[in-house]
Parts: sequence; structure tokens; C-alpha cells
Amino acid sequence: MHPEEIIRHKRDGHQLSRRQIEYFINGLVSGEVADYQGSAWAMAVYFQGMTPQETADLALAMAHSGEVMDLSAIAGIKVDKHSTGGVGDKTTPVVVALCAAAGVPVAKLSGRGLGFTGGTIDKFESIPGFRTEMNQKDFFAQVNRIKAAVIAQSGNLVPADKILYGLRDVTATVDSIPLIASSVMSKKIASGADGIVLDIKVGRGAFMKTVEEAVKLAHTMVAIGTQAGRRVAAILSDMEKPLGYAVGNRLEIQEAVDLLRGQGPQDLEQLCLALSGRMILLGGAVSSLKDADSLARHLLDEGHGYTKLAEMVEAQGGRVKNLERIADIDPASLQVEVKSPRAGYITGLKTDEIGRAVMALGAGREQSGQKIDHSVGLILHKKTGDLVETGDVLVTIHANDPQKLEMAKEQVLLAMEWGESMPLMAPIILEVVDG
Amino acid sequence: MHPEEIIRHKRDGHQLSRRQIEYFINGLVSGEVADYQGSAWAMAVYFQGMTPQETADLALAMAHSGEVMDLSAIAGIKVDKHSTGGVGDKTTPVVVALCAAAGVPVAKLSGRGLGFTGGTIDKFESIPGFRTEMNQKDFFAQVNRIKAAVIAQSGNLVPADKILYGLRDVTATVDSIPLIASSVMSKKIASGADGIVLDIKVGRGAFMKTVEEAVKLAHTMVAIGTQAGRRVAAILSDMEKPLGYAVGNRLEIQEAVDLLRGQGPQDLEQLCLALSGRMILLGGAVSSLKDADSLARHLLDEGHGYTKLAEMVEAQGGRVKNLERIADIDPASLQVEVKSPRAGYITGLKTDEIGRAVMALGAGREQSGQKIDHSVGLILHKKTGDLVETGDVLVTIHANDPQKLEMAKEQVLLAMEWGESMPLMAPIILEVVDG
Repeated sequence: MHPEEIIRHKRDGHQLSRRQIEYFINGLVSGEVADYQGSAWAMAVYFQGMTPQETADLALAMAHSGEVMDLSAIAGIKVDKHSTGGVGDKTTPVVVALCAAAGVPVAKLSGRGLGFTGGTIDKFESIPGFRTEMNQKDFFAQVNRIKAAVIAQSGNLVPADKILYGLRDVTATVDSIPLIASSVMSKKIASGADGIVLDIKVGRGAFMKTVEEAVKLAHTMVAIGTQAGRRVAAILSDMEKPLGYAVGNRLEIQEAVDLLRGQGPQDLEQLCLALSGRMILLGGAVSSLKDADSLARHLLDEGHGYTKLAEMVEAQGGRVKNLERIADIDPASLQVEVKSPRAGYITGLKTDEIGRAVMALGAGREQSGQKIDHSVGLILHKKTGDLVETGDVLVTIHANDPQKLEMAKEQVLLAMEWGESMPLMAPIILEVVDG
Repeated sequence: MHPEEIIRHKRDGHQLSRRQIEYFINGLVSGEVADYQGSAWAMAVYFQGMTPQETADLALAMAHSGEVMDLSAIAGIKVDKHSTGGVGDKTTPVVVALCAAAGVPVAKLSGRGLGFTGGTIDKFESIPGFRTEMNQKDFFAQVNRIKAAVIAQSGNLVPADKILYGLRDVTATVDSIPLIASSVMSKKIASGADGIVLDIKVGRGAFMKTVEEAVKLAHTMVAIGTQAGRRVAAILSDMEKPLGYAVGNRLEIQEAVDLLRGQGPQDLEQLCLALSGRMILLGGAVSSLKDADSLARHLLDEGHGYTKLAEMVEAQGGRVKNLERIADIDPASLQVEVKSPRAGYITGLKTDEIGRAVMALGAGREQSGQKIDHSVGLILHKKTGDLVETGDVLVTIHANDPQKLEMAKEQVLLAMEWGESMPLMAPIILEVVDG
């Protein structure tokens, strides 16, 4: 088998066999296939696409390119969640807590983010003392004991994806549905969960810009999971505007805590309940979606979710006595309200610009390994659909640097779109694709 | 400027600016653009193509990525010829000799071949003593004195093409008309000639399989040359069967000598006259194509071409007294006639298989730097269109290894296609594209 032939085969629109895909992926890891062959192949896939079979073969080949987690030491049906990434997404602490409170084990490996804000691990690390490094024995033991743990992905999980994603990122081959789907699913499969709920963001702040492409991605990912013997469901959620009001690591943890204490924003609550309901269903705690959704609602309303989050935070070394007012710990030195220079309806938010503003404040990373500032970020007071009077507070910016503050302020104002009448608004949940 | 953006721009079907192309090409040479970005970009070009302006910009950017020959020390309008490569192509010694005999200077830099048979340099080096390494001063002096020199390309000519071609070769991105055209033309432009005649081979033994794609390639190359201020013409010639009867380095020189002595095969003669005529016209020796063609014919018929070749061989150190019977020097140890196992018309020759047979004998290179055997090869006695009786000699194989001989024999027999009636035959010259 020759790498050049495999590239040519795909270039010419033919279906690759499982053997060809495995050879190519393992070759990328061993060095037998050169990185310049990997990138040319990815570009050929960008243009020619992949059949469902090829995509599943690719995801499985990548999943098995390194270590694959064996979660069998954890009792029960393990569930996991994956979000394709958006601005202000703090669903993980909420859904992990609700599932665990329902008795469904979540043994979650998460990443440090690149881009707008930190990843889930960065958000948890904004809780003082919270440990995200843990050996496997302790990790399993914690999940068996309290049904929940979130730790940083380590070890040699899916090395093929690291290589291929690294290449795709600098060769304009990221936005290919089979490559995105197999990248995400390879990691989820290697992470070992039995049930996986995907939160696919759609809109300006997300990678998928239209519901149509997101549905395609969802079906592709669900099919991969099914092929790998996992139970998978996907929820498409709106990312035309940030999720909730808080953007920035510790500010987002505060908003998640607020939600679990019954004071969360409606869009965030709806999405968290939908995700948790499906995770609880896949985890087998109840036998119908209706019962799962009711259970999630009940656990939220009764504060069991909050209790569980506090338990997990404590188990992982966080200073739990401060959790309710987590944002008051070590706050950003500058907190400035940005007032509206005009009146009218906010008809749109350039969500990606909000993300960039927060990254500019220091909440996100431009390069891997970069240190991030857990305290900075912003709280939106108005979002799309709100009627604003001149002088109303639009947003509070939390910054540690006056210059960055000014830049963020300008960027936030530029992110707002105005009109004279109330805009049409998408619901937070756009579509559900069940496996 | 970011390489990723340039790749994306092309991927999305947009036209690249001259500045983007220059940045990308120079970046490949400097290392600022990674090889995996070069290959992904080439694949995007494969799918999206390039406008004539982009293709010309690419060729010029590549031509200027290294040293560019300045031939101004040579008097007159310098002409050059380039063939896209075929089996049995020994036109260079003939056309160089005819042009020089017409007083049109040819200062030719050639390559050592990769593939079926050696390149032009390998063929000349099969003449004992012939030197293909020469310093620039001596090279110019020889051309000024006798109007002809053929030496091996050295130095840092078109480093961008070396890098890009190396990548394309192993990433299934060779067969793209703008990439082929700019690769060839960058080298021709950097080689410094004022007039360039292209011999574009079409058919099974060539890279271009149809006249249609070859015409497209021809127009693209002519347009590049024009943009670079060069006079260019292209001749499309048939490569459904080998050119002439001899395939193999020294055997081909013998056939070129035979032609210049009035005993050459008709297809080779026609093509050499057509190429020489156009080169003589571009070189300004006469003012019409008709006069140029007549002059070429006259120089051939009167033996002036042969005299000139002998003069050039002598100037470059070849043992000229043997030139007429060059194939008798150090011949292959085994010369075996392959007889026809059947009767009928030869309706086709798998030209690429003939090429592979000769490469297997040791006449070509599979890897750069490999030593080749100048004496081996084959002489076809029958070609497409010939009526054959059982027992007629089809081919004489010249080999130095009995095992390779057997393999070549089998391969040659497999290359022959048979039928009951005379096949339709293409003329040797299929089309001409003038600049």
C-alpha cells in the first residue's frame, strides 16, 4: 500500500477501504505517511467527502491509534457529553452534576481550550484548589463513589487526531464534516463512555453556520457512534448569541452555580435540561425520555444538582465554602459598565466578536500552553431581542488591564446590531437527532 | 499574509494575487511555508484550477525563486526546446544540430531523467567522453563559436519547483494543468532562452492522454511564456507508440545520428523538422514558417545537421570518429531477437509498458542518483499498423543480464495489441499552438 495511491483514490472520488484508512492513519502516527501526505489527503477529503462507512472507519482507526480508555472498573452505564464549542458555554458543570445526581456516572476527560475562552478544564480550574490531574485509580474511585469526575485529558489518547488536527488547522482543511465528525467521535470513543450526547452549536459564534450543515454533522457523528457500539444523541443549539450572560472562565462557573441554585438564565437552563435528560436516558436511569426530562428538572429544582456539584468540587480539592459566590474570589481589578450610546432593539450579536473581546482580555488562548486569566470576562446585561434605552448598561467588563479593557469595550459595542423592531429569535434548541 | 489563508482562498475557488503567490512560493523555499501547506495548496489547485494570470504569476514566481540564467553574453536570439517526455524521444540532438546549422544559437540546459529511459543528458553521456559539466564561461563561448551546447542543469535553478514537484510527486497532485505548465515554464524561463518550442506528447506513453487536455496545457504554457516576454510555440505530437524504433540511451543516439545522415524513421524525421522549423523561425534566421521549414529540410538533406552534431560532440569531448556507428561502441552483451508468436496487424502498443521494459533492463532510473546502463534498450522492428507473420522479428532486445532480458521480453510481448485489420493511425503531429 502506498500513501500516494490512497490520496489519489480519494482525490478521484473513490471510497477508501477500511484497510487503506487504517494504513494511512497508523502511518501518520508511525511516520510512514508524511505530514505533507496527510494534509494533501485532508484536502482531497475536503473536496470529495467520505461515505458514512469511510467516516466511521476513520473515526475508529483514529480512536485506536493510541490508548483507549477502559471504564469497565466503573459501575453502570457511563455517559459523556461533547460540545462543538461556543461562546459562554458552561453546560458541563451543570449536566455532569444533574446526571450524577440521577445516579448516572460521568467520567469526563476534558481539554484546555484554544480560542475564545478557556475549555472546560480551564473553567473548572478557575475554582481555587480544583485539581484536574488525577491518576486513573483515583478517577475511577471518585466516579464510583460520587458518580462524577472531570479531569484533564492526558496520556496518549488519539495521537492520530492530534497530528491530523494539527495539520488541518494550518492547511485550511478544518471545515470538512467527515473530518470534524471523525475527530470528535474518535476522542469520545477513546474516552470510553457508553452513551454520548453531542451539543452541536449553530450560528455565528460556532463552527457550523447553518442548521442544515449541523444536522448533517449530527447524523454523521451519531452514525459513527452507533457503528462503534455506543449510544449517541445530538442536540443542535443556537449560537447566534452567547449562551447565558457570562463569558469568561470563573464568571461562567458562577453562572452555572446560579443555574443549579435556581437563578440561571433561561436559555442555559433549557439547554442543560435537554442535554441532561438525554444523558440520563442513555445512562439507563429511567426508561423514557419523558421520565428522564422530568428527573433532570426535579433534580435541578430540588437543588440536588447543586449539592452534587459541590460534592464533586470538594472531592477534587476545590474550596467549596465559596462556591455560591465563586466570582467574588480574586475578582478582576477593573469592573466597568458599558452604557448604551443609543436606544433601540438589539437585533443581533456578533457572537464571534464577543468571543474575541473576551480572548483579548486574557480569558482565552491564542497558542497552546499559554496562561490564561481566570477572572476576566464580561457579563452581558442585554442580548438579542432586548429593547434598550440610551444609557442602559449593556455589559459589565471584568478586566485586569486598562488598555485591554478599552479594546474589549470597543469590540463589544461593535458586536451589537441594532434595529427599530424586535428581531425574529431562534429557540435555544433547534433540532434533536437521536441515534 | 498567512499560508493558511492563501490555501483557503484557493480552496474556496478565489483567484490568488501575484503577491500571495510570490509569498507562498518564496515561503516554500525559505521554510516560512511548510511542506504540508505546499501539498495541501497543490491539492486545492488540483480541484479549483488557476486563471491564466495566476498560472503566469506562479511560473514567474518559481522562475525567480533562485538563479535566473542571463544568456546576454551569447549573440543572437537564443532558442530552446522542451519535451514533456515520452518513450524513444531522441529529438534533442537532431533539433539542436539543425538550429545551430541554421545559425540559431541553442544554449541548452538539460536534466537527467527519472522514469522510463534516461533524460537528454543521459543520452548524450552515452557518447563516450561527452562532457555535460561545463562552467558558464566555456558554455557561452562554445555557443558563440558553434551555436550549440547541451549541458547538465546545475546550480540553484528554480528551487521552488524542486520542492513543489517533490511534494506533488508523492501527494497525487502531479496531474494539474496549471501546476504542470508553471513547473515546465518556470524552468524554461529561468534557463534564459528568448524563444521556446514545446513538444507536448499525447497518448499512452505520455502524461497527457488526450489531445484536448494537451491543447489546454499548450495554451497555458504559451500564455505563460508570452507574459514572461518570451516567444513560445507548442507542437502536440503522438505518443501512442514510441517515437522512432530505438528505445535506450545509446541506441537512441544512434537513431538520431541515422536521421541526420538521411536514414531516420519517418515519424522522428517529421517531428524533428517541425520542431526545428519553429525554433529557426523564433530564432529569427528567416522571416516565415515556410522558409524556416525549408531551411530545416535543406540542412537535414545536405548533411549540415550531421556535421553540426559531430562538431558539438567533438567540442564537448566525445570521440567523434565513432559517431556514425555509435551503437557499436561497448554494446550490450546480449542481443536477442523476439519473434512473433502469431500473425496479424499490430493495432496498438502499450507505450508505457515498452518504457517499463526498457527501464527494467537498466536504461532508466527509479530513484534519483541511480546509475544507468547506456548500452541496453530495444529496437522495435514492428510498430502499430504493421502486418506481421508468425516468426517475424518483432523486436531486438539489448541486455546485460539474462534475467532482465527475459522479463523485458515478456513485457514487450504483453505490450503488443493485435487485430485482423489495419488500425486507424494518428499522424505524428497532432496540433500546433503558436504564441
